[in-house]
Amino acid sequence: MRILVINPNTTQAMTDEIHHVAKAAASPGTEIETVQPKGGPRSIEGNADEVLAAYHTLDVVAGSKGKYDAYVIACYGDPALAACREVSSVPVIGIAEASFHMAGLVAYKWSIVSVLPRVKPLLEELVARNGMEKHCASIRCTPLTVLEIEEDIERTKRMMVDEGRKAIDEDGAEAILLGCAGLGPLDKWMQQQLGAPVLDGVACAVKLAEGLHGYGVTTSKVAAYKDPERKELVACPVSLAGVYQREAAHV
Amino acid sequence: MRILVINPNTTQAMTDEIHHVAKAAASPGTEIETVQPKGGPRSIEGNADEVLAAYHTLDVVAGSKGKYDAYVIACYGDPALAACREVSSVPVIGIAEASFHMAGLVAYKWSIVSVLPRVKPLLEELVARNGMEKHCASIRCTPLTVLEIEEDIERTKRMMVDEGRKAIDEDGAEAILLGCAGLGPLDKWMQQQLGAPVLDGVACAVKLAEGLHGYGVTTSKVAAYKDPERKELVACPVSLAGVYQREAAHV
Amino acid sequence: MRILVINPNTTQAMTDEIHHVAKAAASPGTEIETVQPKGGPRSIEGNADEVLAAYHTLDVVAGSKGKYDAYVIACYGDPALAACREVSSVPVIGIAEASFHMAGLVAYKWSIVSVLPRVKPLLEELVARNGMEKHCASIRCTPLTVLEIEEDIERTKRMMVDEGRKAIDEDGAEAILLGCAGLGPLDKWMQQQLGAPVLDGVACAVKLAEGLHGYGVTTSKVAAYKDPERKELVACPVSLAGVYQREAAHV
Amino acid sequence: MRILVINPNTTQAMTDEIHHVAKAAASPGTEIETVQPKGGPRSIEGNADEVLAAYHTLDVVAGSKGKYDAYVIACYGDPALAACREVSSVPVIGIAEASFHMAGLVAYKWSIVSVLPRVKPLLEELVARNGMEKHCASIRCTPLTVLEIEEDIERTKRMMVDEGRKAIDEDGAEAILLGCAGLGPLDKWMQQQLGAPVLDGVACAVKLAEGLHGYGVTTSKVAAYKDPERKELVACPVSLAGVYQREAAHV
Amino acid sequence: MRILVINPNTTQAMTDEIHHVAKAAASPGTEIETVQPKGGPRSIEGNADEVLAAYHTLDVVAGSKGKYDAYVIACYGDPALAACREVSSVPVIGIAEASFHMAGLVAYKWSIVSVLPRVKPLLEELVARNGMEKHCASIRCTPLTVLEIEEDIERTKRMMVDEGRKAIDEDGAEAILLGCAGLGPLDKWMQQQLGAPVLDGVACAVKLAEGLHGYGVTTSKVAAYKDPERKELVACPVSLAGVYQREAAHV
Amino acid sequence: MRILVINPNTTQAMTDEIHHVAKAAASPGTEIETVQPKGGPRSIEGNADEVLAAYHTLDVVAGSKGKYDAYVIACYGDPALAACREVSSVPVIGIAEASFHMAGLVAYKWSIVSVLPRVKPLLEELVARNGMEKHCASIRCTPLTVLEIEEDIERTKRMMVDEGRKAIDEDGAEAILLGCAGLGPLDKWMQQQLGAPVLDGVACAVKLAEGLHGYGVTTSKVAAYKDPERKELVACPVSLAGVYQREAAHV
Repeated sequence: MRILVINPNTTQAMTDEIHHVAKAAASPGTEIETVQPKGGPRSIEGNADEVLAAYHTLDVVAGSKGKYDAYVIACYGDPALAACREVSSVPVIGIAEASFHMAGLVAYKWSIVSVLPRVKPLLEELVARNGMEKHCASIRCTPLTVLEIEEDIERTKRMMVDEGRKAIDEDGAEAILLGCAGLGPLDKWMQQQLGAPVLDGVACAVKLAEGLHGYGVTTSKVAAYKDPERKELVACPVSLAGVYQREAAHV
Repeated sequence: MRILVINPNTTQAMTDEIHHVAKAAASPGTEIETVQPKGGPRSIEGNADEVLAAYHTLDVVAGSKGKYDAYVIACYGDPALAACREVSSVPVIGIAEASFHMAGLVAYKWSIVSVLPRVKPLLEELVARNGMEKHCASIRCTPLTVLEIEEDIERTKRMMVDEGRKAIDEDGAEAILLGCAGLGPLDKWMQQQLGAPVLDGVACAVKLAEGLHGYGVTTSKVAAYKDPERKELVACPVSLAGVYQREAAHV
Repeated sequence: MRILVINPNTTQAMTDEIHHVAKAAASPGTEIETVQPKGGPRSIEGNADEVLAAYHTLDVVAGSKGKYDAYVIACYGDPALAACREVSSVPVIGIAEASFHMAGLVAYKWSIVSVLPRVKPLLEELVARNGMEKHCASIRCTPLTVLEIEEDIERTKRMMVDEGRKAIDEDGAEAILLGCAGLGPLDKWMQQQLGAPVLDGVACAVKLAEGLHGYGVTTSKVAAYKDPERKELVACPVSLAGVYQREAAHV
Repeated sequence: MRILVINPNTTQAMTDEIHHVAKAAASPGTEIETVQPKGGPRSIEGNADEVLAAYHTLDVVAGSKGKYDAYVIACYGDPALAACREVSSVPVIGIAEASFHMAGLVAYKWSIVSVLPRVKPLLEELVARNGMEKHCASIRCTPLTVLEIEEDIERTKRMMVDEGRKAIDEDGAEAILLGCAGLGPLDKWMQQQLGAPVLDGVACAVKLAEGLHGYGVTTSKVAAYKDPERKELVACPVSLAGVYQREAAHV
Repeated sequence: MRILVINPNTTQAMTDEIHHVAKAAASPGTEIETVQPKGGPRSIEGNADEVLAAYHTLDVVAGSKGKYDAYVIACYGDPALAACREVSSVPVIGIAEASFHMAGLVAYKWSIVSVLPRVKPLLEELVARNGMEKHCASIRCTPLTVLEIEEDIERTKRMMVDEGRKAIDEDGAEAILLGCAGLGPLDKWMQQQLGAPVLDGVACAVKLAEGLHGYGVTTSKVAAYKDPERKELVACPVSLAGVYQREAAHV
Repeated sequence: MRILVINPNTTQAMTDEIHHVAKAAASPGTEIETVQPKGGPRSIEGNADEVLAAYHTLDVVAGSKGKYDAYVIACYGDPALAACREVSSVPVIGIAEASFHMAGLVAYKWSIVSVLPRVKPLLEELVARNGMEKHCASIRCTPLTVLEIEEDIERTKRMMVDEGRKAIDEDGAEAILLGCAGLGPLDKWMQQQLGAPVLDGVACAVKLAEGLHGYGVTTSKVAAYKDPERKELVACPVSLAGVYQREAAHV
């Protein structure tokens, strides 16, 4: 199968890293391509960032119809997730939801460890949207921005293990979810340090995409994720125009 | 005070109508301007529509900094609400949340009556995000698209009153919230038909904007709605670039 | 419009102060009258206090029918709120609920800072009744009784800012709600100290009353707040007798 | 032990009936006295009724300190419950909460069948306050007022069994709670008709009062139900004045 | 009446102690028998322990049909509770649920103090199953195993009072629930130390069993606790075979 | 990898069918073995059934340590799930939770369609335990027992499609979860009939087991699923005795 992993931000180094992680997680028969959109912020750390990234992420999905068997949205805010499901007929998986679902199979309670404190309200909403409040022991933040993760990897590792340890010792977490796609490469190292499962959403999403595809199940078009209504768009990416006028193509 | 009401879709007739409703609700000292973004879908009835509209709505807010005392986002999905709060220092109010808050003052339980059934999951999420599950008796939909509201206004009125009546008689609603900015003009007529409060979000948002401004309270910049982090944007509206590089301007 | 602000306790100095705050918040065209009931406790800090205050507050509302366009119940326990809505046809607003609704427009999470620890369970119930659990970061108490607020205003200010600061730094609050009508005068000063919105319920309620009145919406009489059933009362305030026998007047 | 059962309304016939039911439920060593307050409405069917009844009920409890081992508040709205716990040192039990707790031991889900539809929002709040939402299958109402229950007992029985049957067949209820003290005498008859447990709150409360007393546990004075703060009362029942000035008595 | 108290673990000393506590709580007319099952773990401190204990506990109930008026399951995980209700026609009460229901009558919030930290997730689920999240202030654990409770009773008392005190001072608890049947004998001593109600589930369950029996109410057979479907069992206790083939007996 | 699928009931025909379904879902490199326990009921349709099946299922897992890379518990009540996680070091997946997690990736709301109405309360608890209340549109039952599914497969198909259709049309479901392992073979046929995703838990669990194994994540041993405490067992399966005395083996 072919999975398109989309890094919704526009930092090539991070896209490369996500690609590496996704490939490592993929099964032999799975092809991974990883892209970043044509526009948007260099990193995603807030609501305005997400609005911009969502727009361009949707463009990527709409513009690649028919080429992939599944999409992975590799930002731990799951931007544009529901919208991408509308414009596609194959599964679209967000890395945050992916990590929630996988964690539920190995831990009664888990914590997210992420970047800047300002992402905490966004993550709380995401946990609530997925109904995971009772299984989320805590959301802990480091003071790092997304792009600082790579600047001093030893500092990042130290901070991540410190917060992960506190999540386990003080908050009741039994597993740690890495709250940013850029943290993915730390998963196995942290797992060893903490003696508890550490889950990267990119890897989880790849496995879930394989699972859905292998089982032959895709996005329901009954209600929440129906194709968009046919309508005129003004000054929007041409990829979307194609999607919205789809019925015209039938004439 | 000056309020900018933004119709996030790109249908001028609807923008005009929203302007009329907002002006009617405004107090004597309140100036209302109403605009629609430069781009986006003609109507908003799903998640992809919202992603596109959110992008352009954010552009409107970012591009008008310093000119208004408050913003109203006049689409009953509250698109880009959190993001607009980040890029502005004055209150930004969504019409759905506005109607929830006002309804809570006059009814123990209320129902939303809206357009196409496909918006129901979006509205459920909005109700949940605002913590209003226990006060929301039901979400009822007509088969109308947003742009069909105006096509046959007698049909629209009939359908709206029918669903509103059922919400009261069968679901336990004590007030009706109009689940689309385009339904605003029906509020007083429906209120008379139903013998129960009927709330239009645009009117509610104007009154709440006046209230916040009158009391001298604006968006908290402590966490969820902090200004965006300074960062580079790729291929984004120039208005946003200004916002994101704001510190540079101080140099 | 004319708003009757009711201080449900029987301390004249506090009634005067509430009047001052309410007047300051009112728009030019709004007349504010402020009263306290004929009976009840000098301050309200528990359930028994509330039962006594509720009885006399209801008497005030029932005894002033037709004279006001809205009522504000100026005690942060919202005593007799639902009952007053039953005996009146104009909006009745509690200051706790008012602060919840206004805070939701400017902050994702807020905290209440109040008096004696014993009020905490009452405030928790109030938060739950309004469905605000997910937006309430914490309820913090000072050791002050209601009447001690004024005794040493510098001490009060110090304690309030300390708890407000902790709510922001430790609990994730982005705005502070003043959990007692007597704390209202501190709002702007605290807002400046904390760099975050500080909301006084009296001011919020006045603005919401203006909003409802301006928009022409009042209490629903469909279910929860229906007029009382006609029935005989024994040894109750004469004002209520009038309300309960209202149908007789039609004969 | 001695239990004072308080019928919070002022209809002697109903007080007599409650007495009969409570006595039938009491164990051999339990003395039951049943009273109604000096004032208040003839029946309790709404929020204003409750405010009036609460005031007079509190007077009964405050005025009988030291004479009883437990109190039962025999109105299915549990009026003044928390307040009475403050002014007493022995257990005070509401009949609604009593029925919830007992029902939880014999059924996974139960329904309340009560009087007029207007009580439904009050009962919903009561269910929520006690955390029983997941176990409450439904709240069903007959069109009867409280005082009509006795007017035509055959009609009442027919309506109650009809609604109880629907609760079981349509809503998933496995037990029925009688949502008004006046319905108590129907419990065993309905239980036989429905083939499912039918619980009267008065009987449940008597058994729970016996249980608490037998086990030697009474109301916690740590926080929510602390004795009232010492303070001056204006124009309140003399019984309360005694309670509030209690420390003075120690001088 | 006759109550069979079942200690689901297989430690005779603990069975004896539970018997002593249950007898002390019983009313004059109540006969208490206490047994332990033929098999299962010596103590119950986790999910596997519970599965084993549940099996043998069910055997005890199924094998004693017709001999008792109620059963008490004396392990604070309420093992096999729903299953035992299916195979019996008399009330079956778990000691955890019993303590929740009784505590709700004397405290707004309570905490559980229990054994090893590993039981915390089990207790959280139990609290949630009973809808008690809002009334549960905290679950606190000592480092003690079940069988260590008795090893050094002074150490146990010290640890229990320490955690109980913290629950009151830091978590907002107003009453303490003893989270293990083996802790029962400490109830009155701890109550005196803490100045707050301390509830042992065994005592609570005995009083509730007496209450249900006295009122003539037993387990509903409408849905959740219906008798098992008639079916063949393989290699199961002979007591169950009798229950499952019950219809055959009617032939 | 090697997965042991356990049919917790003792009907060989059903074990065979589950094996067929699991094999069909497995990836090329996955070996599937399917067993049923030595004892327990012929089918699982209630709480007593579950207690018996749980005991024997635990025996299977404890008795096969070191032989498999993952376990699937193929009964839609997830019996013994937490217990099996304690006694194993590899992932253990229940088919109900598996279907919840997979469904969340393709539908906003889903419904379960299952056997006899008596399983509804069990399934409600399972949905709640997994935090899925907001995504579960409804639980619908047919009148079929587990063993009747196969008796008249055309009747079963008709009933399942009827209930699935109602779940979509009346309850807002966008996907259907098959609420019994015996219904698995219907998944693709029903999916075609309904035009919406239909998920069989056995297939979902196999894919999730592959995903966890492929990603190298297994059950956390930090708290909820720690190995059992070392202790003596009385009259329990010898397999468990081995697990419980594990430390002794280290000597």
